[in-house]
Amino acid sequence: MTNYSSNRKLYFGAGPASLPEEVLQEAAAAVVNFNNTGLSILEIPHRGKQFIAVLEEANALVKELCGLNDNHEVLWMQGGGRLQFCMIPMNFLNQEKTAGYIDSGHWAHEAAKAAAYYGNTQIIASSKTENYNQLPLLPESIDPSLAYLHFTTNNTIYGTQWTTEPKTSVPLIADMSSDFLSCQRNFSDYGMFYACAQKNIGPAGVTLVVVRKDFLEKGNSNLPEMLSYAQHVKQQSLLNTPPVFAVYVSLLMLRWTKRQSLAFLENTNNEKATLLYTELERNSLFTPNIINENHRSKMNVCFKAINETAEKGFLAFSKNKDVEGIEGHRSAGGFRVSLYNAVTLAAVKKLIAFLQEYEQVYLKQ
Amino acid sequence: MTNYSSNRKLYFGAGPASLPEEVLQEAAAAVVNFNNTGLSILEIPHRGKQFIAVLEEANALVKELCGLNDNHEVLWMQGGGRLQFCMIPMNFLNQEKTAGYIDSGHWAHEAAKAAAYYGNTQIIASSKTENYNQLPLLPESIDPSLAYLHFTTNNTIYGTQWTTEPKTSVPLIADMSSDFLSCQRNFSDYGMFYACAQKNIGPAGVTLVVVRKDFLEKGNSNLPEMLSYAQHVKQQSLLNTPPVFAVYVSLLMLRWTKRQSLAFLENTNNEKATLLYTELERNSLFTPNIINENHRSKMNVCFKAINETAEKGFLAFSKNKDVEGIEGHRSAGGFRVSLYNAVTLAAVKKLIAFLQEYEQVYLKQ
Repeated sequence: MTNYSSNRKLYFGAGPASLPEEVLQEAAAAVVNFNNTGLSILEIPHRGKQFIAVLEEANALVKELCGLNDNHEVLWMQGGGRLQFCMIPMNFLNQEKTAGYIDSGHWAHEAAKAAAYYGNTQIIASSKTENYNQLPLLPESIDPSLAYLHFTTNNTIYGTQWTTEPKTSVPLIADMSSDFLSCQRNFSDYGMFYACAQKNIGPAGVTLVVVRKDFLEKGNSNLPEMLSYAQHVKQQSLLNTPPVFAVYVSLLMLRWTKRQSLAFLENTNNEKATLLYTELERNSLFTPNIINENHRSKMNVCFKAINETAEKGFLAFSKNKDVEGIEGHRSAGGFRVSLYNAVTLAAVKKLIAFLQEYEQVYLKQ
Repeated sequence: MTNYSSNRKLYFGAGPASLPEEVLQEAAAAVVNFNNTGLSILEIPHRGKQFIAVLEEANALVKELCGLNDNHEVLWMQGGGRLQFCMIPMNFLNQEKTAGYIDSGHWAHEAAKAAAYYGNTQIIASSKTENYNQLPLLPESIDPSLAYLHFTTNNTIYGTQWTTEPKTSVPLIADMSSDFLSCQRNFSDYGMFYACAQKNIGPAGVTLVVVRKDFLEKGNSNLPEMLSYAQHVKQQSLLNTPPVFAVYVSLLMLRWTKRQSLAFLENTNNEKATLLYTELERNSLFTPNIINENHRSKMNVCFKAINETAEKGFLAFSKNKDVEGIEGHRSAGGFRVSLYNAVTLAAVKKLIAFLQEYEQVYLKQ
């Protein structure tokens, strides 16, 4: 295969995230000639056998990697997490019920805000008053009559992450946008989970939705087709033209994930995060934002410098070393280094070396 | 630039549609290294200056090509036409009003069906009982109190097309998915128009929405952000992560469209369609589905063979000549040849030659 020149940078962006170069090369080739069809992946018919094969393989890989059987359905949708924020209450909330939300960060909060347009919601725990710098404390018992309990497994902006599920008999719905397939979870326990692809599993423009059949069957039916999960399931992600290219790149990422193995990726992600947090605690110029070690995200490591000179200084220093994407979210400031699956251990070690090198430069100034 | 091997076929698919090879090559290169940033177009931050420049140039080109001024806003959204079918009534219909719909084909019908979930709708004209094989006759006067009048400029499945707008004082909303930028229209007259990209302006996964400010201001405000056009306008298509790659390929297509010029494309599209319809009327084996010449689509030419032998025969014959994508929609059968902007006059002439060659083969059998 002809390869395009890449000249890769050290990229730690929060999303759209870094993707492995082998995936990028294969995706680029398919843009001109997909599977030797003489057509671009942008041109192939979405109901043709070529794309049906892409969808079926992608669905099977999601199930395999998550340890799911036919009790769950896999969907490829559009509109990001935000459209799910609206569709979840449309489909699963009704006049007689209340939906529970855990408010652990910006996106968790937005999910609850959207749901309030469609019915009664209850914030069962929140760390908003702590500026989301920790995970909220869950109540000892959760009202078992809730329609569902929604939470966000990883809080991309603030850098906190749930490693376990809330204990409850209420159907769980999770936004896994920023840590899906970065670690094992009890995926089969969920009524529904979803992830926009542009972190660990693909490019922006497609959202993976996985829903348990028995939960789906209890959902609302009086909805336009486009906003009904049941209709999307019935049409197997082909209710309308899907984002073909984004689904295909997601398939390439799923194949890559399987080649690496989820266990290997989880171990590597743990190692990457541990090395970086350890350095941030040692380095005299930087401090991690999240104090409680058990609440720290392994995907998004947020930290601050001791002063503005060090902050601006390290930004300029690292840019010179071809490091990109480490600025904090515009609402949080400081730094955010995202360690998604495609970010290698070697890249993290280089970044740590730059943190150390800059510390020496700064202290000698 | 390194070029991938393409081995292009003669492609007449109805969408995702054929794209020019120069656009495909440029898109492929950007998947590995976008604008020499050392990052893939799939990785660049959507709020970074590189992508903001893509969005701004794309918006400016849409306005320039459509002859629009700052009275209209340009949005890049997800969910295809179908999500717009739901968002239009959510945003522009209320308890006091009725929305008018022209039912000229499958998608026009689906748009009206979705709207009925959100308020009163009225079908002001329909050709459903004629199997959509003609455009419906519009009433002499249209109730001026309608919230809006929705119609579909080109009916992809059945192959009919409106060349002019309905005469009314009611705000017009048009689904232009399958003929946007294939011909001039009075774009500034519309309250809103929209087009999923995968016909004339890009790949699947992004939908262009253009809305007039004074019409938008009269819209409903009690909506979750994701379903509110006003919020998308306020955030300039960055309410959440946009489908970066699909927007970028759309920009490449808009640049290509400008290089060709809309007038040239319209002339060529007219020539392509005239040549093909003329051949279909001459050829003893085939007949165009749409009898009324003024109703015929220049984008999707639907026709049938005189019998099943000729139908299957020509399908096999043309496949041998590397022709792809000419089967009719599964609900209509027969043939459908799509003549979107990227389909060249030379390609149409080749297809016509194959129709003639096959006629000779068939008649000698």
